Amino acid sequence: MENDEVILLGFWPSYFATRVKVALAEKGIEYKYKEEEDMLSGNKSPLLQKMNPIHRKIPVLIHNGKPVCESLVAVEYIDEVWKDRAPLLPSDPYERSQARFWADYTGKKLYEFGRSLWTTKRGELLGGKKDFIDSLKLLELEALGDKPYFGGESFGFVDIATIGFYSWFYVYETFGNFSIEAECPKLVAWGKRCMQRESVSKSLPDRHKIYELIVEFRKKYGVE
Amino acid sequence: MENDEVILLGFWPSYFATRVKVALAEKGIEYKYKEEEDMLSGNKSPLLQKMNPIHRKIPVLIHNGKPVCESLVAVEYIDEVWKDRAPLLPSDPYERSQARFWADYTGKKLYEFGRSLWTTKRGELLGGKKDFIDSLKLLELEALGDKPYFGGESFGFVDIATIGFYSWFYVYETFGNFSIEAECPKLVAWGKRCMQRESVSKSLPDRHKIYELIVEFRKKYGVE
Repeated sequence: MENDEVILLGFWPSYFATRVKVALAEKGIEYKYKEEEDMLSGNKSPLLQKMNPIHRKIPVLIHNGKPVCESLVAVEYIDEVWKDRAPLLPSDPYERSQARFWADYTGKKLYEFGRSLWTTKRGELLGGKKDFIDSLKLLELEALGDKPYFGGESFGFVDIATIGFYSWFYVYETFGNFSIEAECPKLVAWGKRCMQRESVSKSLPDRHKIYELIVEFRKKYGVE
Repeated sequence: MENDEVILLGFWPSYFATRVKVALAEKGIEYKYKEEEDMLSGNKSPLLQKMNPIHRKIPVLIHNGKPVCESLVAVEYIDEVWKDRAPLLPSDPYERSQARFWADYTGKKLYEFGRSLWTTKRGELLGGKKDFIDSLKLLELEALGDKPYFGGESFGFVDIATIGFYSWFYVYETFGNFSIEAECPKLVAWGKRCMQRESVSKSLPDRHKIYELIVEFRKKYGVE
């Protein structure tokens, strides 16, 4: 596998692409990263259209020419192909099921409710802010608890699935006008803990750059 | 594992509960089925609320008192716990990734577009019908092709993920006013092939009963 060609198609602020970046970094896999330059305008590159003709979405992992689409599918694929390196999913079937459940949860709930915070006009947030905070609190209480990582003592699948959202906390807080640290101190401590890992700090986008992007987005689409 | 207690919380017309039923039947696992009697009115049973406090949705697989929520998570759990019986996922990592991709696809696209066919007034269908037919054609062309099953020669993960929708074909056709067999003959032949398996024929709800339920639903909510 030393001569394998691994390519990742991504878009820099994407929490979903971040999942695949962190998984590759955790396994110590060298890869070539290709940025989808024109993602926001809806112009998809010919390579993305060829490699993910069904959804035409990033991330796409391309391993020796063959595409794997959908971020969690790609993370599981990486875990299975490079199975002799740091395992991402636990080995016990019940623990695996719970990890898959929570990874699915963050991709659905944090995505959906988080997105509503910066795509909604300031005066119209209403229930969206409460939904988001509730979904974070539930994640903190039920999945993280007092453990250092979601998987327990070691960084794993749910951490990988969730850490990309940490870069967006600043956007959520600014447009939602609340403090995530005040609401979910353990979750923020978890994020800081993860950032001490090179696999995370080198893979995550800069939160201020994301903020600037969203400010531009809101101006362009009249969301103020 | 012979003395294991296995319980499934379901709702009879649910394509998602059907996934878990078929997986259990394929593995030859005896289980106790508990119907959520009052699903449509939104009254969830105390057991469901206790076992799936996060989403409060069926299906929930309860194995020796411990719940596994989300249908595909439950199917993978079944495959991993009873790994010595008929495997549901292929063993090759790339094939596994493709199976997971298509199982995810049917749960998203057939669910979303199919639902719009019977929750929309007859004159207002517009693009919904085309979206549904296109998603079926894409599934037939890209995932099934000329193979007897999605996984190839043997019935497996994507078949399990998709077969529950086959019971709804009659509803989709009636309210959408089109013939799935005319649009996707290979997909309908696949459905008939699957129905020859006892694991499927004994797990799938009756299409006419589903139709009657939807007629009631549309009357109740003024969708005509």
